[in-house]
Amino acid sequence: MTLAEAPAERRPELVVGVDFGTLSGRAVVVRVSDGAELGSAVHPYSHAVMDRALTAGPAALAGAPIELPPEWALQDPQDYLDVLRIAVPAALEAARAAHGVDAHDVIGVGTDFTACTMVPTTADGTPLCWVDRFADRPHAYVKLWRHHAAQLQADRINTAAHARHESWINRYGGLISSEWEFAKGLQLLEEDPEVYAAMEHWVEAADWIVWQLCGRYLRNACTAGYKGIYQDGAYPSRDFLAALNPDFAGFVAEKVEHEIGQLGQPAGMLTAQAASWTGLPAGIAVAVGNVDAHTTAPAANAVEPGQMVAIMGTSTCHVMNSTELAEVPGMCGVVDGGLVDGLYGYEAGQSGVGDIFGWFVDTAVPADVVAQAETRGLGVHEYLTALAAEQKVGEHGLIALDWHSGNRSVLVDHELSGVVVGQTLATRPQDTYRALLEATAFGTRTIVEAFQRSGVPVTELVVAGGLLKNRLLMQIYADVTRLPLSTIGSDQGPALGAAIHAAVAAGAYPDVRAAAQVMGKRTVAAYPPNEDDARIYDQLFAEYTLLHDYFGRGANDVMHRLKDLRRRVLTVGRPAAVLAEVTS
Amino acid sequence: MTLAEAPAERRPELVVGVDFGTLSGRAVVVRVSDGAELGSAVHPYSHAVMDRALTAGPAALAGAPIELPPEWALQDPQDYLDVLRIAVPAALEAARAAHGVDAHDVIGVGTDFTACTMVPTTADGTPLCWVDRFADRPHAYVKLWRHHAAQLQADRINTAAHARHESWINRYGGLISSEWEFAKGLQLLEEDPEVYAAMEHWVEAADWIVWQLCGRYLRNACTAGYKGIYQDGAYPSRDFLAALNPDFAGFVAEKVEHEIGQLGQPAGMLTAQAASWTGLPAGIAVAVGNVDAHTTAPAANAVEPGQMVAIMGTSTCHVMNSTELAEVPGMCGVVDGGLVDGLYGYEAGQSGVGDIFGWFVDTAVPADVVAQAETRGLGVHEYLTALAAEQKVGEHGLIALDWHSGNRSVLVDHELSGVVVGQTLATRPQDTYRALLEATAFGTRTIVEAFQRSGVPVTELVVAGGLLKNRLLMQIYADVTRLPLSTIGSDQGPALGAAIHAAVAAGAYPDVRAAAQVMGKRTVAAYPPNEDDARIYDQLFAEYTLLHDYFGRGANDVMHRLKDLRRRVLTVGRPAAVLAEVTS
Repeated sequence: MTLAEAPAERRPELVVGVDFGTLSGRAVVVRVSDGAELGSAVHPYSHAVMDRALTAGPAALAGAPIELPPEWALQDPQDYLDVLRIAVPAALEAARAAHGVDAHDVIGVGTDFTACTMVPTTADGTPLCWVDRFADRPHAYVKLWRHHAAQLQADRINTAAHARHESWINRYGGLISSEWEFAKGLQLLEEDPEVYAAMEHWVEAADWIVWQLCGRYLRNACTAGYKGIYQDGAYPSRDFLAALNPDFAGFVAEKVEHEIGQLGQPAGMLTAQAASWTGLPAGIAVAVGNVDAHTTAPAANAVEPGQMVAIMGTSTCHVMNSTELAEVPGMCGVVDGGLVDGLYGYEAGQSGVGDIFGWFVDTAVPADVVAQAETRGLGVHEYLTALAAEQKVGEHGLIALDWHSGNRSVLVDHELSGVVVGQTLATRPQDTYRALLEATAFGTRTIVEAFQRSGVPVTELVVAGGLLKNRLLMQIYADVTRLPLSTIGSDQGPALGAAIHAAVAAGAYPDVRAAAQVMGKRTVAAYPPNEDDARIYDQLFAEYTLLHDYFGRGANDVMHRLKDLRRRVLTVGRPAAVLAEVTS
Repeated sequence: MTLAEAPAERRPELVVGVDFGTLSGRAVVVRVSDGAELGSAVHPYSHAVMDRALTAGPAALAGAPIELPPEWALQDPQDYLDVLRIAVPAALEAARAAHGVDAHDVIGVGTDFTACTMVPTTADGTPLCWVDRFADRPHAYVKLWRHHAAQLQADRINTAAHARHESWINRYGGLISSEWEFAKGLQLLEEDPEVYAAMEHWVEAADWIVWQLCGRYLRNACTAGYKGIYQDGAYPSRDFLAALNPDFAGFVAEKVEHEIGQLGQPAGMLTAQAASWTGLPAGIAVAVGNVDAHTTAPAANAVEPGQMVAIMGTSTCHVMNSTELAEVPGMCGVVDGGLVDGLYGYEAGQSGVGDIFGWFVDTAVPADVVAQAETRGLGVHEYLTALAAEQKVGEHGLIALDWHSGNRSVLVDHELSGVVVGQTLATRPQDTYRALLEATAFGTRTIVEAFQRSGVPVTELVVAGGLLKNRLLMQIYADVTRLPLSTIGSDQGPALGAAIHAAVAAGAYPDVRAAAQVMGKRTVAAYPPNEDDARIYDQLFAEYTLLHDYFGRGANDVMHRLKDLRRRVLTVGRPAAVLAEVTS
């Protein structure tokens, strides 16, 4: 008897989670009773990331796309709607084909999004890039999280915040990112005041997509707190904004401020139009918006205080709940209800993790190792990992700093760079590879210890994301942190987490914590620490910390000076004045 | 008219230089009047380096060669005689065929040898390994310079020398090497007292080969000083030796002490037997023995005070004359007449240079770069060099320490290891390669500055050796040291230098300095420093020095601790006691 053949009263309730990533959107159909994932589908964005030219708009259609300056990263919001129109019906069809379930049994839909990704809109939520007169204006498009062209604005925000002793600055480890709402908004004002003036709402894409689904604009507590500097019921003051730029004084009141919804609450009901796009029943619950890393925590059933969830991919994002409010040095932020309602949600991060391993494999592994991997039918990462796994801890004689992409937590310094100490003529690729794996584990331990020292206990490390598949890496993290390392039981964590929020919004569970316990999936202590190895790692971590503090806390600012020199000598043409400066 | 057809009185005088290297010997026939190299030949040693098993002797002949412990490196002296028997006649034949010159016109023969390479002999110079009852005793064979199994003995020599404030220890930068005469001799005594007792002379191979040529044993001033601790007319005292081991008290008096010959003097005349081996005329002058690096200085016509000769290959050896006697911290040694009679000869060195570049190419260059090099018909070194040469100074944003093989001068610490600071996800192989080239140049500048600071001026850098062919490397050295960089005009510098000594020994020139001016070859200031680049390198050298002193002078002994940990975890079987120590 298939599920479809079961009597109507026994047909299982379903929810749909939709995860909006950097390059594509993914929908997953989930059973409310146990979190089983019954079907999923992915839709890649047609415009992907526009970081060299504006490939949407009339100019692009006419074959003359507008070039973008360095560090820009835009998206076209039409691509997000296409995910609703294509991936959601495809996921429903996959679930029907595999399990015989029916779209009519879906009781709620939830979403998660990259952040901080910002959409400038009219009063009714129409993106300004869809307004004819702005369709060729880059500033009218969506600024993706990794749009990094507002660094000068971010620098001014930070300088002013510290100069004025703004109370909120230490809720963000002392630094507001160029990626966030205020820096991007200030850039918009200063570079295209006409678009800024026409903008009625400066909307997180996480909230914009919910607006499209239920017709109601509600800011979610997660991005409002982490990216929108909303703390203790207030945003930065008009005075502060005016100090940045007199024309920016009304930014909060006129562009940002709006009703806030708590995570897991319903934002509204699915509109008829959204029902026609998705194939979902009109009128079902639509959950308040959320962020990918933050929905992963309930997906791993890891939302209790002390459960630190590390979403490990090209970079790592750490999120954790706590009953304590503390200013942890170098964290990305702490937000009341930022992860689940009723607890303080913390976020921290490592700028480079899988990216560093990928860089090493792409640029530093010789042909003979690649050939040996091929002979064995292994990828290069797998083969290097297998070779590295044969070593005893400490055998390679190396220590590395994992700062090839800068340091997010706890130093919050993107001018830092990588270090390898200890190479000899006997050092092999697998030795350095293992040292880099270990360096990222030391980086996580540094973050864990910053929380512990600030009075925010960490009792379990829960790993999600693509790097889960590297078993050596997982064991190293367990041994280095001396924490039981648990693993998520899903490879589509963010979408599963969005579905969990949908179930709560639909009333199937009283709150996210309760839903996570039933629908979330986690193998507890999949990798327990090995005490013998942990003791040796204590010695190596002491070496890491010595180098971390030497290079990262001002004793030797060589990394800053090297990057500064690099920028100066690369100045086009090297005019005499620049050369004089370089060599002074 | 060929040279051979010229009237007898106009036939040019010739000399022969024979260079005994690590794996082969090379003979070159040189015209006395101008140093022209008329013919040469190479003979590889049959036994090469015996570092795993004794492949000479009855046991090896019977198919059961004796295994050697780690760090051993032996040679069979018969291989040296074979060079005389094969390479010298072949070089004469090559010179005859190419230039019509005749062996009868050879007026002298000179040699140079690796050092410290030691032969234990009977009273008449017969190597003990040729004495039947010792032919299967490893300690009866030649200990090659890179026999490193006497480290424990070297450590005891150094500890005792400093404890007793021996005046000679600072003539060697504070450290006697395990490679030298005393450490190797003490090992011989303590590990095979019977061979030690039978040994009548402990002979430098540089002097043994001269003994074979002229029948007279004379210690050369160069190795006696640099390797034999002969300073101010005396060796270490009987008291000192007895403190090391009572049975070692007579080492100098009974095994080492012997008449000393100055460089460029005749040791004697070629014997009839040696004439029959070589095809040279009996009775011609045989020059006092010498060392490869030290004969290269006259070959480059660079024996005046302030001319620092860098012989750059897998490692770099620096030699320089001065009128000043000074204790330069971290030098290898200073010897009165160690380079030419009448001046103080200094020696310093870098343990890893070409070896580091080779290690990088072998282990850290990806297949696509290798393929691109092949497409262009270039070697990987050449291609990386070409890519690196496109960069501006400072562009790669990196700084490296060139200690992959430890540091000889000026830190004299083989427990140090390599460092690279500044890598990012944008760092390419040519960036790190260039940083390594630069690191070795900074290492040379560190040595140059140590001499300058000690009151020993350096005014010109003269490069010889295989790395000469890398033009980018040469320019970097000129820019980094701000010295005019001159280059030797011969690719067989040691043998040419040996031939110059032969000419002096034969009376064709009054001394080595005069002969070098005529027969030596050097392009003066082939690479003048570029002032703009030199100013940027000043900044990078300041960064190098900061890291050099941090890692090398005790502020952070992480390299020592990493090597120590590596050794401990690699202890076979990791018994519980060791583990307890490792994790304590």
